[in-house]
Amino acid sequence: MSEFKNATVVKKANVYFDGKVTSRTVILEDGERKTLGIMLQGEYEFATGAKELMEVLGGSLDVRLPGTDSYVTYKEGESFEVPANSKFQLIVKEVADYCCSYINE
Amino acid sequence: MSEFKNATVVKKANVYFDGKVTSRTVILEDGERKTLGIMLQGEYEFATGAKELMEVLGGSLDVRLPGTDSYVTYKEGESFEVPANSKFQLIVKEVADYCCSYINE
Repeated sequence: MSEFKNATVVKKANVYFDGKVTSRTVILEDGERKTLGIMLQGEYEFATGAKELMEVLGGSLDVRLPGTDSYVTYKEGESFEVPANSKFQLIVKEVADYCCSYINE
Repeated sequence: MSEFKNATVVKKANVYFDGKVTSRTVILEDGERKTLGIMLQGEYEFATGAKELMEVLGGSLDVRLPGTDSYVTYKEGESFEVPANSKFQLIVKEVADYCCSYINE
């Protein structure tokens, strides 16, 4: 699916890390919330509330998931899940375009 | 209007200047195309096709419009128009969040 249809898009961006990570919030017709974001080169730590599904739309993300010791690279077309209420680390070596889905369990 | 409703959102981002300028394309119900974008600090030149209406949603943009010699600062809540088929220069001193509308005349 290359587009979201019948979506509500919040105009204002979500801005983190001095703009090196930004995203837009999209609400689908069924109420599901997603964010479409960009991460520039850098190292970041994020905390989840809900479980997250991260799809890499462009570039790549090196991710260290909770409970693991090493970084795994996810490239365009690949995705990974992050458990609810956890923290994960990212190293971004090239501009990454992503879609994050929030999964209520 | 803080949201676009019943919109189509293209998932993949538009990426310019090594990711320092990125945007997402949103198509409104009536077919109007807009982009929601972020510009990080830097100096940029853009070329227009259609006439553009640029709204500053956050931060600020210093803009030199075609046929002018000086930069004018536009802040959150302000907007400016750029003629079709022209070039304009921007100096971005703080992360800027914007909405660009393309106006067919």
